[in-house]
Amino acid sequence: MAGISNNYEDVFKKRRELKKSELNLLDKDELITKVIQLQAQNEQLQRLVYLNEKTEKNTPKKKKEGRQFNFTKFAKRHVFLQIAYLGWDYLGYVTQDHSERTIEAELFKALTKTCLIESRETANYHRCGRTDKGVSAFFQVISIDLRSQVSSSLGVYIPEGHTAKDEEEEMDYIGILNRVLPKEIQVIAWAPVEQGLSSRFDCKKRTYKYFFPKADLDIQAMREASQYLLGTHDFRNFCKMDVGNGVINYTRNILQLTIDAPTGDDSYNMCELTIQGQAFLWHQVRCVVAILFLIGQRKENPDLVKELLDVDKNPRKPQYSMASEIPLILFDSSYEGIEWKHNQQSLKTTIKHFQELWCNYAVRATMLNKIMATLSSISVPGNLEMNKLNSQILIEGVESKVYKPIMKRQLCDSLEQKMEHFAKRFKHKN
Amino acid sequence: MAGISNNYEDVFKKRRELKKSELNLLDKDELITKVIQLQAQNEQLQRLVYLNEKTEKNTPKKKKEGRQFNFTKFAKRHVFLQIAYLGWDYLGYVTQDHSERTIEAELFKALTKTCLIESRETANYHRCGRTDKGVSAFFQVISIDLRSQVSSSLGVYIPEGHTAKDEEEEMDYIGILNRVLPKEIQVIAWAPVEQGLSSRFDCKKRTYKYFFPKADLDIQAMREASQYLLGTHDFRNFCKMDVGNGVINYTRNILQLTIDAPTGDDSYNMCELTIQGQAFLWHQVRCVVAILFLIGQRKENPDLVKELLDVDKNPRKPQYSMASEIPLILFDSSYEGIEWKHNQQSLKTTIKHFQELWCNYAVRATMLNKIMATLSSISVPGNLEMNKLNSQILIEGVESKVYKPIMKRQLCDSLEQKMEHFAKRFKHKN
Repeated sequence: MAGISNNYEDVFKKRRELKKSELNLLDKDELITKVIQLQAQNEQLQRLVYLNEKTEKNTPKKKKEGRQFNFTKFAKRHVFLQIAYLGWDYLGYVTQDHSERTIEAELFKALTKTCLIESRETANYHRCGRTDKGVSAFFQVISIDLRSQVSSSLGVYIPEGHTAKDEEEEMDYIGILNRVLPKEIQVIAWAPVEQGLSSRFDCKKRTYKYFFPKADLDIQAMREASQYLLGTHDFRNFCKMDVGNGVINYTRNILQLTIDAPTGDDSYNMCELTIQGQAFLWHQVRCVVAILFLIGQRKENPDLVKELLDVDKNPRKPQYSMASEIPLILFDSSYEGIEWKHNQQSLKTTIKHFQELWCNYAVRATMLNKIMATLSSISVPGNLEMNKLNSQILIEGVESKVYKPIMKRQLCDSLEQKMEHFAKRFKHKN
Repeated sequence: MAGISNNYEDVFKKRRELKKSELNLLDKDELITKVIQLQAQNEQLQRLVYLNEKTEKNTPKKKKEGRQFNFTKFAKRHVFLQIAYLGWDYLGYVTQDHSERTIEAELFKALTKTCLIESRETANYHRCGRTDKGVSAFFQVISIDLRSQVSSSLGVYIPEGHTAKDEEEEMDYIGILNRVLPKEIQVIAWAPVEQGLSSRFDCKKRTYKYFFPKADLDIQAMREASQYLLGTHDFRNFCKMDVGNGVINYTRNILQLTIDAPTGDDSYNMCELTIQGQAFLWHQVRCVVAILFLIGQRKENPDLVKELLDVDKNPRKPQYSMASEIPLILFDSSYEGIEWKHNQQSLKTTIKHFQELWCNYAVRATMLNKIMATLSSISVPGNLEMNKLNSQILIEGVESKVYKPIMKRQLCDSLEQKMEHFAKRFKHKN
């Protein structure tokens, strides 16, 4: 805020507008000078307006001449990196429009700034899976070829034209990157891997967690419904179909689905849903959670899950809003034969960063709790029930006056209809 | 973001700058027209830059002709309003530069939009006390004259030229305002009051609360230090002196100062500091908390408080950062003979809004907790101590390698020096 005000004064210096009568008194040269001056001020203002949302005031600097890093003196190493990030204020791991405000953009800024890679194109980079806007991760894995200071070890290779250093220990990848990354994106571990190992296709299992307050939910009903989701099923009614991107097989295998709820009646207690699968469909977890919430609210029966999994009977997905993305986190990605290496000092610093962030949120939550408790106590007749947390806050979208059961709602196109639609478009283009 | 881009194109329509050679070809009239055009564009841009943090895209609309509300058909009523607000994302209750992003600005938007007042100038408005940027309130009180639909009752008067309605019950001030206010600003209660009663000067006591996690603080030491602050003292070393605004008396009376800390060892447990006084100095609570934190960290002794209260011995305040504003909330303002009226339905809705906000923060805090616990468990040798909350996160500013005791730090100007400085400046101006 201070930055903006300063610019305002710098740029304008209490300049005032001249009236037409005053302008008439100036000669042509003076007028031309004025126009040039105003055009320059205009340009500065335009830049201020346009760049106002950028966190950096400067445009990214290109590498300066004469400061070029000599990558040819180093070998390269094929590694996996475990990245943790809080995605709440980001536009996603990656976006269609290659926006700057993504996890991936920050990662590459750090990788290039630290000269761990020469460029994205030459880094042999693959990601594990994309997370959407607002979604977080504890175990996002990327595979990438980093500069190495050893000459031979698992994953190390010497590109043509390169020589290699011969240090005893590898570079402190974690420490180097974390020092330049923002606090909400941290490298947790790294692992040297054989060439050809892919962070995306060699992932055996993925685990997501979803956090929500108990409110007035019937956790038992939610658990009953969860059981029906286990195993191999066609989950087309529990996701956003992505036919345009070639996804036509909606069969997935859910290995685990549990809900950890603390004992006791406090509606403000936090619950933790854990869901593990080999691979997930787009928005699958959020759709599953949305349905479980309706069941927990007793607006739907646990049998609804069975109905939605019966794609022969119900080939078209009823319209319902998926759950919020904020409480969702990719918590584990497991691989075979990977030896993750940590840096104890970095772990400490990472924990410290997260403690600061935790404090920000926890203090606000506590203040709100206090306010709500006081409001309940002044209600008549001192009705503490008023403070019980209402599960409706977990449901996205505007609450309709009369609840419409899922099986009575409007239906989306079926998979076959969507495939036909894309086939026509494809034909039309050619 | 979209709004800004649209404006950008609207305003500039791919206009390009004219070079001096091109300008020479124009005659004087054309140049004058250009200057006026550029001045207008400049002004629009200035507004865009200046107002970029506004939540609304439109400038406040003026009342349209023919839609004028006829205030002369109503009496007016002198009332107190109890306002609660979460100040975290606002620039303060009010700002020097009359920025729009303040609590007061939102209040007046609501008051004028609902035609409860005709204008700020004719509303006989007084505030209780200002809260700074980021500070919240549960019990901010304003006094103001609102439109009334009754003809005679406490606080009601019929201005010259007005007639009065004669309803049985007063307007639902709380409901009317809360429907147009943002969720984080809510009217809790109203009270009809006699003319001449001031929300600021008739306030008998004010209570602030400050929330912080226990971390590794020595709460007992903090409580011991708190005792020394009770009673009437000169608090110049526990505030930011405001000589420029005429404050030369730093004697205040602290009626209560307690710290509520839950039993048990969990460093993540929240503590609640409550401080009550008749009136407070600028930043007094934040300065008190900052000193108490240092004592809680065992970097200072509880006796430090006695030193700082001894203004004869220590007339100049040592430099130290005040505590963060986020956890601070004006929790109670008490008056004599006021009968606060609530609206049960509004209370319910207000609680619902705050529940939604609570959920946002609580979920994030829980997710961070889970991440930190997992990080601690992968540390070697599985050192859960690593997860213990470090109180350093509560201390503002960069931590220096070697702690400098308060009594050894650089000193600010004394009250006398500041008074002399302002006296000179005043003389100089005249």
